[in-house]
Amino acid sequence: MSEQERRETALLDRVLGSFDGCRDPRLGEVMRSLVRHLHGFLRETRLTEEEWERAIAFLTATGHITDARRQEFILLSDVLGASMQTITINNEAEGDATEATVFGPFFVEDSPRVPVGGDISFGAAGEPCWVEGTVVDTTGRPVPGARIEVWEADEDGRYDVQYDDGRTAARAHLFSDADGHYAFWGVTPTPYPIPHDGPVGALLAAVGRSPMRAAHLHFMVTAPGLRRLVTHIFVRGDEFLGRDSVFGVKESLVKDFERQPYGTATPDGRHVEGTWSRTRFDIVLARAEV
Amino acid sequence: MSEQERRETALLDRVLGSFDGCRDPRLGEVMRSLVRHLHGFLRETRLTEEEWERAIAFLTATGHITDARRQEFILLSDVLGASMQTITINNEAEGDATEATVFGPFFVEDSPRVPVGGDISFGAAGEPCWVEGTVVDTTGRPVPGARIEVWEADEDGRYDVQYDDGRTAARAHLFSDADGHYAFWGVTPTPYPIPHDGPVGALLAAVGRSPMRAAHLHFMVTAPGLRRLVTHIFVRGDEFLGRDSVFGVKESLVKDFERQPYGTATPDGRHVEGTWSRTRFDIVLARAEV
Ligand SMILES: [Fe+2]
Ligand SMILES: [Fe+2]
Repeated sequence: MSEQERRETALLDRVLGSFDGCRDPRLGEVMRSLVRHLHGFLRETRLTEEEWERAIAFLTATGHITDARRQEFILLSDVLGASMQTITINNEAEGDATEATVFGPFFVEDSPRVPVGGDISFGAAGEPCWVEGTVVDTTGRPVPGARIEVWEADEDGRYDVQYDDGRTAARAHLFSDADGHYAFWGVTPTPYPIPHDGPVGALLAAVGRSPMRAAHLHFMVTAPGLRRLVTHIFVRGDEFLGRDSVFGVKESLVKDFERQPYGTATPDGRHVEGTWSRTRFDIVLARAEV
Repeated sequence: MSEQERRETALLDRVLGSFDGCRDPRLGEVMRSLVRHLHGFLRETRLTEEEWERAIAFLTATGHITDARRQEFILLSDVLGASMQTITINNEAEGDATEATVFGPFFVEDSPRVPVGGDISFGAAGEPCWVEGTVVDTTGRPVPGARIEVWEADEDGRYDVQYDDGRTAARAHLFSDADGHYAFWGVTPTPYPIPHDGPVGALLAAVGRSPMRAAHLHFMVTAPGLRRLVTHIFVRGDEFLGRDSVFGVKESLVKDFERQPYGTATPDGRHVEGTWSRTRFDIVLARAEV
């Protein structure tokens, strides 16, 4: 080992040892792992002092733009795939349980309730979209009464909360029926950018990445005794599927949204002007951790 | 490979691939290394979603306390040993060149100049301390005219800039003489805590670590054609040497500060009331990188 290597590893060992007196074993474990990876990063890249200063300035700007309405650190975690990796780790694969994806910042508590077959759009602009499926557990048994929260952007790529007029639109909840079946009218999802006028947007531009998210429709499904599922469905053929800015896309969540020609009869007899689309999303809930 | 492992590595690969279009090769290299270590940390610790939320809240608080006078992200880097590791990486071992250590937040440009043998304390409270040595290069040749900046805390553990009265004290610069020799009067260094009333202080408390820095005296030495040296000297026997909060201590920088009994004659004939101390610090400058 060279003298230089000896100095670097001796320093790392000293930092790791500084957590020996930690009374919280989990915190000690997390901090030691953090330190090992942080020093590994510095040593592997031979980070210069000027680069270190730029990193400090980046974190400072990220902190300063963050307020009650905007969370730039979550955005940073998102574009580095850290949010998605955390979701993946905490939703262990279990049989054919539906895969989870990122929660995103646009969920709102106390959404309106609609009946099975109801309309969640509440006037949001966009092509009507019929979504239906069943909720089952990993043994294939239907789950009646599952609470299904759904929310999405309108055709301009904006959520209701991004307008200043206090509207509630393109979000609701419903409950699966006695057979585990659910259905609703929404709007066909469209792509939208994550906020990109801050440090995270500048980082994406510097590395040549797009801020766009692949078009999607959010779901959160809960039922007693089963693991809460937070996920999206994506639109097959969407141009951003392969480069979703927050890495939320999983192949199993990409669905066919079939566009129906003008005049096609709707499943529930509703009259629609122009085209509409339909998709099917069957949901499998894992067991709750015990 | 389990299905779970396959999902986690596939996600990591997707994130790494997102930097393929980066036009700045160094930025791409740094980002890929960062992502590998960040995901390595998340996967190794199996970080929970609640822990992830606490990390986001910690970074947010660190950003919000940071302003023009206080840099909590640098403090965070310091207590994780990241600042010291960056210094170590960027000051490659070269022969017997004096080791570098952290810069710290208390350096001030345009310090007063004193002659060799002058007094840098300018009234700062503390036991007088005589510091002397020579500046040489790694071939042993004396370096005349090296600029030596020195700064330190007073006996209450505070730097001049931490007082509200605009004083300049316990800081100055001088130049080595024709033989590379230098000497000055300062005050015997005393330990002090880093700012610990913010998120970083809370972290130190949670892991059972002290915010104290081992007593030290800062040096920055520059001379044409030689590598700039930023370092400290530490006081042998100081109780915080083994647990300096920012990991700045290196054995080669620990010096004997010999306390002189009342009435001992001083090197320059100066009259001192009470005890005084003396130390020697010979400085070896590496070649400048070319
Ligand atoms: Fe979304
Ligand atoms: Fe200091």
